[in-house]
Amino acid sequence: MADYIGKVRSDDLFKFSVDVFLKVGVPRKDAETVSEHLVTANLRGVDSHGAFVRIPHYVSAVQKGIINPKSKARFVKNTSNLALIDGDRGFGPVVAMKATELAVRRAKRTGICLVGARNMSHVGMLARYTLRVVEEDMIGLAATNSPPIVVPWGGTKPVFGTNPFTIGFPVDENLSIIVDMATSVVAAGKIAVYASKGERIPEGWAFDKDGKPTTDPKAFLDKGMLLPFGGYKGYGLSLSVEVFAGLLIGAPFGSRIARGWATQGGFLVEAINVSSFRPYMEYQKDMFELIQAIKSNPPAEGFNEVLLPGEPERREYEKRLSQGIPVYPDTWESLKKVSHELGVDLPPVMS
Amino acid sequence: MADYIGKVRSDDLFKFSVDVFLKVGVPRKDAETVSEHLVTANLRGVDSHGAFVRIPHYVSAVQKGIINPKSKARFVKNTSNLALIDGDRGFGPVVAMKATELAVRRAKRTGICLVGARNMSHVGMLARYTLRVVEEDMIGLAATNSPPIVVPWGGTKPVFGTNPFTIGFPVDENLSIIVDMATSVVAAGKIAVYASKGERIPEGWAFDKDGKPTTDPKAFLDKGMLLPFGGYKGYGLSLSVEVFAGLLIGAPFGSRIARGWATQGGFLVEAINVSSFRPYMEYQKDMFELIQAIKSNPPAEGFNEVLLPGEPERREYEKRLSQGIPVYPDTWESLKKVSHELGVDLPPVMS
Repeated sequence: MADYIGKVRSDDLFKFSVDVFLKVGVPRKDAETVSEHLVTANLRGVDSHGAFVRIPHYVSAVQKGIINPKSKARFVKNTSNLALIDGDRGFGPVVAMKATELAVRRAKRTGICLVGARNMSHVGMLARYTLRVVEEDMIGLAATNSPPIVVPWGGTKPVFGTNPFTIGFPVDENLSIIVDMATSVVAAGKIAVYASKGERIPEGWAFDKDGKPTTDPKAFLDKGMLLPFGGYKGYGLSLSVEVFAGLLIGAPFGSRIARGWATQGGFLVEAINVSSFRPYMEYQKDMFELIQAIKSNPPAEGFNEVLLPGEPERREYEKRLSQGIPVYPDTWESLKKVSHELGVDLPPVMS
Repeated sequence: MADYIGKVRSDDLFKFSVDVFLKVGVPRKDAETVSEHLVTANLRGVDSHGAFVRIPHYVSAVQKGIINPKSKARFVKNTSNLALIDGDRGFGPVVAMKATELAVRRAKRTGICLVGARNMSHVGMLARYTLRVVEEDMIGLAATNSPPIVVPWGGTKPVFGTNPFTIGFPVDENLSIIVDMATSVVAAGKIAVYASKGERIPEGWAFDKDGKPTTDPKAFLDKGMLLPFGGYKGYGLSLSVEVFAGLLIGAPFGSRIARGWATQGGFLVEAINVSSFRPYMEYQKDMFELIQAIKSNPPAEGFNEVLLPGEPERREYEKRLSQGIPVYPDTWESLKKVSHELGVDLPPVMS
């Protein structure tokens, strides 16, 4: 990654983002939902899904009519513990957060609720949804499928997206465990970083456009493909996400998903109310015991400590909240264009 | 694996197994459930969870009072879409299959049902449960936690079991997709095979008893530990299974799980009724399209074809059903002992 040119405060970035989306016709409430989502991704260090990278693409998708800024989501199915939402081509974070809120509300009554959503744009950083579920002392799961770039294990043609999923476990108000991963061995964006540095990528990450193994990042970037993580095991998970977020709920899958920075297949979220199984305090006591067993583990060679899933992102969140979010030259240039075009002042950059 | 000394027919093996369990006081219905489970594992080629390997351990666990052969499972929680079963120290396959049947029955009415089970012995081959769920045109998920042998990523002390999970997708009566995997990079039994052949194990599989990486299978077998598959991603899954099957439902976890060939933490199963989301025929049509995209994939170097998750096991099942189940000298010796001790005739061996 190139050196950053300064930092912006998260609330300044949020305000900029809201103003941008208001300018292209997004209602304030939805503009705030999308902006909060993007800035949260930046705060957690997930810049690939943050405001700098995504705002230009999202704005362009609204301008091209790919995203409907005035969308009204509607129910396709709606029972006490299961629902399916049609997003009316709306913003992914708006539609997926609606699905998540519904899952939480229903699970409070029934113990468990599963909600699917389809017909919306890119849902963003998946962890955002399980972070919401754990606030309610519930376990959350979410998954989404995306345009094909990952081969099935043993194959040479992309069938699956990077197909991420997330699982969140509540602990207390200051601590949760958030698993969030792509089912590909690596994100495409990471390979682009290798290319820009002129470095080789490790074996086992990617194929070139002819389906041959390659360690040349440029050979991947020229219509190449990714491998699933962990061999046939990641393949099984990649396929599972494709069915859960796509085929089960009648959302697009495989090559039916439009390519682009603002597109998505479908989205599935589940909330499980811990206290429907046992008193939350008992679960919490056990969680502290498990966490103690993990964190007290003597580190292996090459490690300083054992981290919980989601712990690096939580630390980055605290740091960036107080010190600001780093700004990189290339994405700042894209934001400048948006700023000029829409007449929205850029957020101040601190050196 | 040593050469096999002959084959037994699956129904002969089933009869032998039922007779053995009857002799140690298991009611006929439960003896049949356990035996069907074990023989199904053998038929699918999962011999580590089959009749030859497990019968001696299960019989011994009954004789030692670890398994209660006359168990009466009871409900701890019981609502329309969520239940928790106490297995009364019964046979894992009996208790876990009861949980699975319940999940399927409830999901037929409500669309989704989640059932936990605790206080039972080893539940066997996890795929057995999702194979049952897919028979009802439902998607099944199941997970179980086991005695600690896997380190958290970056650590050097075992916290998790091999913690397998399974996800099953229905297609039609002759075809389903069954994902079934340990969250460790490899099963301990596989390393024992390397040791018996005097071969080194690949890097990244195991640590010795001091938490140092090793390629010596004997160093692993002497109180060593396994790594999660796919690095920190498998770690996230291993931890997730520990919470789902253990902490969420008040079952033992980590070092609280007794060691042994017949022990288990807890078990969690979920059934999702496809037709609650969309007409099954539409889902099925999409599944055939996805399967076509996968199977028509040109194979990569070193592969003859692309297989679906569960396809190798289904092929082995067909083969062994018609040709018999191979018998290996060491496990046959253990069965002989059981046969002598209980006065139950061994199944005939075909050469």
